[in-house]
Amino acid sequence: MRIGVLTSGGDCPGLNAVIRSVVHRAVVDHGDEVVGFRDGWRGLLEGDHRPLGLEDVAGILATGGTILGSSRVQPAQLRDGVERAKEHVAALGIDAVIPIGGEGTLKAARLLSDAGLPVVGVPKTIDNDITSTDVTFGFDTAVGVATDALDRLKTTAESHQRVLIVEVMGRHTGWIALNSGMAAGAHAIVVPERPFDIEELAEVVGKRFADGKRFAIVVVAEGAKPREGTMAFETGGTDVYGHERFAGVARQLAGELERRLGKEARPVILGHVQRGGTPSAYDRVLATRFGWHAVEAVHRKEFGMMTALRGNEITLVPLADAVAQLKTVPEDRYSEVECVL
Amino acid sequence: MRIGVLTSGGDCPGLNAVIRSVVHRAVVDHGDEVVGFRDGWRGLLEGDHRPLGLEDVAGILATGGTILGSSRVQPAQLRDGVERAKEHVAALGIDAVIPIGGEGTLKAARLLSDAGLPVVGVPKTIDNDITSTDVTFGFDTAVGVATDALDRLKTTAESHQRVLIVEVMGRHTGWIALNSGMAAGAHAIVVPERPFDIEELAEVVGKRFADGKRFAIVVVAEGAKPREGTMAFETGGTDVYGHERFAGVARQLAGELERRLGKEARPVILGHVQRGGTPSAYDRVLATRFGWHAVEAVHRKEFGMMTALRGNEITLVPLADAVAQLKTVPEDRYSEVECVL
Amino acid sequence: MRIGVLTSGGDCPGLNAVIRSVVHRAVVDHGDEVVGFRDGWRGLLEGDHRPLGLEDVAGILATGGTILGSSRVQPAQLRDGVERAKEHVAALGIDAVIPIGGEGTLKAARLLSDAGLPVVGVPKTIDNDITSTDVTFGFDTAVGVATDALDRLKTTAESHQRVLIVEVMGRHTGWIALNSGMAAGAHAIVVPERPFDIEELAEVVGKRFADGKRFAIVVVAEGAKPREGTMAFETGGTDVYGHERFAGVARQLAGELERRLGKEARPVILGHVQRGGTPSAYDRVLATRFGWHAVEAVHRKEFGMMTALRGNEITLVPLADAVAQLKTVPEDRYSEVECVL
Amino acid sequence: MRIGVLTSGGDCPGLNAVIRSVVHRAVVDHGDEVVGFRDGWRGLLEGDHRPLGLEDVAGILATGGTILGSSRVQPAQLRDGVERAKEHVAALGIDAVIPIGGEGTLKAARLLSDAGLPVVGVPKTIDNDITSTDVTFGFDTAVGVATDALDRLKTTAESHQRVLIVEVMGRHTGWIALNSGMAAGAHAIVVPERPFDIEELAEVVGKRFADGKRFAIVVVAEGAKPREGTMAFETGGTDVYGHERFAGVARQLAGELERRLGKEARPVILGHVQRGGTPSAYDRVLATRFGWHAVEAVHRKEFGMMTALRGNEITLVPLADAVAQLKTVPEDRYSEVECVL
Repeated sequence: MRIGVLTSGGDCPGLNAVIRSVVHRAVVDHGDEVVGFRDGWRGLLEGDHRPLGLEDVAGILATGGTILGSSRVQPAQLRDGVERAKEHVAALGIDAVIPIGGEGTLKAARLLSDAGLPVVGVPKTIDNDITSTDVTFGFDTAVGVATDALDRLKTTAESHQRVLIVEVMGRHTGWIALNSGMAAGAHAIVVPERPFDIEELAEVVGKRFADGKRFAIVVVAEGAKPREGTMAFETGGTDVYGHERFAGVARQLAGELERRLGKEARPVILGHVQRGGTPSAYDRVLATRFGWHAVEAVHRKEFGMMTALRGNEITLVPLADAVAQLKTVPEDRYSEVECVL
Repeated sequence: MRIGVLTSGGDCPGLNAVIRSVVHRAVVDHGDEVVGFRDGWRGLLEGDHRPLGLEDVAGILATGGTILGSSRVQPAQLRDGVERAKEHVAALGIDAVIPIGGEGTLKAARLLSDAGLPVVGVPKTIDNDITSTDVTFGFDTAVGVATDALDRLKTTAESHQRVLIVEVMGRHTGWIALNSGMAAGAHAIVVPERPFDIEELAEVVGKRFADGKRFAIVVVAEGAKPREGTMAFETGGTDVYGHERFAGVARQLAGELERRLGKEARPVILGHVQRGGTPSAYDRVLATRFGWHAVEAVHRKEFGMMTALRGNEITLVPLADAVAQLKTVPEDRYSEVECVL
Repeated sequence: MRIGVLTSGGDCPGLNAVIRSVVHRAVVDHGDEVVGFRDGWRGLLEGDHRPLGLEDVAGILATGGTILGSSRVQPAQLRDGVERAKEHVAALGIDAVIPIGGEGTLKAARLLSDAGLPVVGVPKTIDNDITSTDVTFGFDTAVGVATDALDRLKTTAESHQRVLIVEVMGRHTGWIALNSGMAAGAHAIVVPERPFDIEELAEVVGKRFADGKRFAIVVVAEGAKPREGTMAFETGGTDVYGHERFAGVARQLAGELERRLGKEARPVILGHVQRGGTPSAYDRVLATRFGWHAVEAVHRKEFGMMTALRGNEITLVPLADAVAQLKTVPEDRYSEVECVL
Repeated sequence: MRIGVLTSGGDCPGLNAVIRSVVHRAVVDHGDEVVGFRDGWRGLLEGDHRPLGLEDVAGILATGGTILGSSRVQPAQLRDGVERAKEHVAALGIDAVIPIGGEGTLKAARLLSDAGLPVVGVPKTIDNDITSTDVTFGFDTAVGVATDALDRLKTTAESHQRVLIVEVMGRHTGWIALNSGMAAGAHAIVVPERPFDIEELAEVVGKRFADGKRFAIVVVAEGAKPREGTMAFETGGTDVYGHERFAGVARQLAGELERRLGKEARPVILGHVQRGGTPSAYDRVLATRFGWHAVEAVHRKEFGMMTALRGNEITLVPLADAVAQLKTVPEDRYSEVECVL
C-alpha cells in the first residue's frame, strides 16, 4: 500500500513520534510505502509531498515539532479543495491518508472522508479537549512543563510574599489548569468551563493571607472569563492577521487582586513553552501506539475512524463522534479539588 | 471520624501525595481526624502512631519517600498480629484504616478486612503490576526516569560503538521495560513474561550491526530469565538477610552478547534511582485523586475495597479481585512493538 | 561565637544552601551558635530572629526560596536604622552578621560595616552582575531554566513558522540573555549594555527568512532598550506601589518585527520561573562553599569583606570594591557570538 | 584556510557543540573550509574524512555524542602513524588540525605537534582532571546527572532504612564525587586521591545511625581504593579485549558496610548515564567558546596550544603543560567538606 501522512495545527510534543511509528509499522512490517504531505493540508491541497523512509524518521522519536511542517488552512479553503485533494491522492496512487491534528483537523478529516477519501485520523491536542479518547498525546508534556514551572514559582511567591497568577494553555477547557494546579498544589484554579466570580477568588486568596500564609498561587486557563457583569474585562481582540488574541486574563486578574487585597500580585504567562520540545515518555508511548494502530486500521480498511485511548487499549472511534463536541472537564472532577472556583 | 493511614513496602513516588490528599480531604472537608501509623504494618501492629494535621502535610506533595516511614513485615507476623491490630484500632477509636501499598500490602489489607477491620486500600507499585486498576502511581515516574537514562545512553552507545544492556525494574512484569523501551526507541526489549532466547536476541542485535548500524540498546527487566536450557544462567541467590537477590540479568546478557557478537557489550543497571524522588505531575494527580476517593469510600463505608483508575475515572474495586493475580503485559501489547522478543 | 544570618532581596536558587552551609560549618566544626533574622534587614532592624540549629536546616540544600524569608527595605530606612541594628546585635550577643543578598544588600552591608558592625557578605544575584566574583549562585540555575525553555520554543517557532521574542531576566546586564542564547543557539541576542537598533535586528531576522529558514528565536534581556530615536518605545512606568514596571520589551519588539517583516512574531516572557525552585548542582556547590568560607572569614575576623569565586578558589574581597559598579558583559564576549546585536 | 577537526576518546556532552562552533566561526566569519576526520585518530591516520558545512552542524548544539564518531587508538599505533598523518594532512591541503579529546588525545596532539603538525587542542573530559583549565565541558553535565540521581536515591534510602553506596565516574580523580556529593548532601564521599580506610567509613556511617538517623548516602568514585592492607579488595581485572575493568568498589563497600554495621547496604552504579545525552547550558556555552577560540588560535597560528578556561576568560596554554600531570582535587577542597574521608 501507499500511505500519505500529514500534520496540521499548532505544535504538539509527539507529532514526530506518530510519524515515525507510522513509517516503522508500514514499511518494516507491511512493506508499504509512505509519503508525507508538507505543511499539513496545504501539502495535500497542492500535492506537495516527499517520500518517508526509515532513514527519514531516524532519531525523531524524542524531538519536538514535526518534520513535515504544519500550517493552518481555513475551512472554506479546504471545502473548495476537496476535489483537488482527491485528484492528488489518485494521481499519487495513495491508498489512505493519515492526518494528525486537533479539532479543526479532525473536522477536515471527516469532510474528506465524507467525500470519499480513505482517511484514518490521529487526534492531537495539548489541550486534551477531544472527546472519544481518554487522553491525547502532548497533554502530559504540557502538564509536566506547567507543573515544573509552578514548582519553581512557589518558592518565589513565598520569598516575595506575593500572589502569582499563572496563565496556562486551555482556550476552551481547563484540563491543563486542573492537572497542573493539582500536581503543584495551587491554591485556586480558574477554568473556562466555569466563568469565575472575582469576589469569590479574592475571598479564597484573601483567606490564605488572613490565615497567616504569605503567598498564593492561582492557576488560570488562558480561556477563562469572568461571570458576566462581575468585573470589567478586556477581551483580546484580533491581531494584524485577524487571529483572535487572548485577553491576558492573568494580567487582568493580577490587577484586580492587587487592588482588592492590597497584596502584590503578578501575572506569569507560561505560553508557548508548554507546547514544544521533547515529549514526555508517556506521550511518546501514546503517540507511537496511535501511529501503529492507524496503520493497522488502514490495512483493515476501517476508514472514517480515529485512533483513541480507552483505559489501556487503543481503539477506533468514528470521526463523526470525535468532533461532535469538545471534551470539557466534568463536574465531578471539580469536586475532587476544593480549590477550583 | 478518625482515620488511620499507613504506607508499606518499597519506596514509590507519590506516597506523600496520597497522605497529603487523605489529610486535606478528611480534615478540611469532613472535619475528620487523621493519624498515621509509623513504618507501615509495624506501626499498626504495635500501635505506634502520630497525629496528621494540615501542617504535617504542608510541602510534601512533590517530595519522594513517605513521611510515615515504611517497612516490610512478613505475612506470618501479620497473621499473628491481626488481633493486636484490631485492639489498637479499637483503643485509638479509629473508624477506618487506609493502607497504601503494593501487592503484599493489599493482600495484608484483605486479611485484615476479612478479620473485620474497616479497610480501604490504595494501590502502590512502580511496577504497575496490580490488576483492577489501569495504572498505579509511581509507574509514570519510573518510566520517565528510565527513559531519560536511555535517551542519554543512546549517544554514548553510538559514540563507543557498543551494545548497552540496560536493566530496569520489573520483578515479574515488563511494564517499565516495555514503556521505557518504546519511549526511547530501544532495539530490543526483554520482559519476564516471555523467557528469552539468547540466540534470537543475538540475532536481532547482530542484524543491526550487519545493516551498518554501530550500536544497539537492549532494555531488560530485572526479572527476565532465559528460556530453560538455552543459556547458562546464574540465579541471584539470597543476601545475608535471606532476601532474594537479583540475578544480574544485564551483566549476564552483556557477557553472552559480547562473546557471540564480538562487539563490546556493557551492562547498565538503573536500580533504585527509578523508585525515588519527586513524582511526575501524572503521578501526583493520580495519587491525589486516590487519596481523595479513599476518604470518600470511608465515609460511604465501602470497606474491603481499593481505589482504582478506569479510563479517566476513579472507582472502587474489591480487594479480593485486586490481589487475585498480577497484571502482566498482555500479548497484544507485544505485537505493537516489533522489538519485544 | 554567635553568628547572625539574613537573606535579602529577590528569590534566588541557592539561598537555603548558603544558610545550611553556614549552620553546618559553624555549629558542627566550630561549636558556634547561629541565629537567623527574619525577612532580611527588617529582622535585623527589629531584632526579629530565630535560632538556627542543625535540625532547622535539614533537607533544605536543594529547596528554592529561603527559610528565613526576605524583604525589601529602602536605603533610607536602613540608614536610619543603623543604630538600632547595632543595639539588637549587641543585645543578642552576636559576634558577626552574614547578610546574603544582591547589590542593594551588599551596599547596605557596607554601610553597616562602616558603622562598626562585624559583617561578612555573601553575594547573591541571578543576574550575575556583581563585580569581584566570577559568578554568583542562582545564575547557573536561571540560565538553565531559560535554556530549557528556549530548547522547547525552538520546535514551536519552527512548526508555526514564527519569530519568537523571548524575554529573559537581566535589568542592567545581559549575562542571562548571552549565556542562554548561546546555549540554545538563538539567532539574535539583545542586551541592556548595547541599546539595540531595530533596523539592524529586523535585518538579521529578515535575512534568515530570505535564506529559506522558516523561523527565528530572539533572546532579549528585560532591561534592553532601543538606541535613542530609532523606535517608538513605551517605558514601563510604575505600579501601584511605586515600583518600576518593566517595559515589556519583548512585546514591543514582536510588534515591530511583525510590522516590518510581515511574519508572525510573538513575545514569550519567561518571568519569575527563572528565579525560583531547586538550584542546579553548580549553584548548590557554589552556595555551599560561600557559606563555608563566610564562617571561616568570621572566625578569622576578616570583616567588611565578601566571599567571591576566582577561578576554582573562594576568596574574600572588600565589600567596597564589590559594589563600586555593576559587572556588565565585556566587549570581547560579544565578539564571541556573532548574533549579539 | 582549511581546518581539520576530530573527536577522540569516550563520549562527553558538548563534543557536538565544539564541532558546530568551529564550523560556524571558521565558515561564517573567516570563510574557511572545515573537514571532519571520522572516528578520531583513526580517521586522521587513514585519511578518512568528510566535509563539514553549516548544514552538517545544524541542530547539533544540544545533542549528545559526536557526529564525527570516536575511537580509541593505542599510543603505539599513533607513534607509528605520525608520518602517515602528516601525508594525509598535506594531501588534503589542511592548514591546521583541531583534535578534541581527553588526556590521551592531548598527549597524542602534543606528539603530532612536536612532529611539526599545526595543532590546536580542545580539552574534553567529564572527569575534569586536566590541568591548565579551570573546568572542562562535560563535567557540569556529569555532576548534574549524578546529583539528580542522588536526590532521587535519598528518599529511597530513607524509606528503606538503608545505606546506599553510589558509584560515580572518576578513574583517577574525585571531582564528580566531590561536587555531586556536596550538591546532594552526601554523608560520606570517597575519592581516588585518598585511599579510604574502611574502619573510618564504617564509623562515619555508623555514627549517623547511632544518632538516630535511618539512612546514609555514600558517594564513591569508581577509581577509589582502600588503604593498603585494610580490607580485602578485588581488583577489576581486564575484559575480553584487554581493557581494564573496574573493581566494583561500590559493591565491595556495600558488602563490607553491611557486614560491619548490620544494616542493609546496597550499591548503585550510575555508569554511562553520566557521560551521554544533552549537555547542560553551562557545558554548551563552554564548548562553544572553546570551539570559537580554537579557530582564532589557528588564524593567529598559535599552534601546540590548547584552549583553557581561566576565571571567565578563555586562554591558550601549551599542550606540554596540559598533559604534564592530572588535576587532582587539592587538599583545601577536602577541608571544605567534612564528609570527605
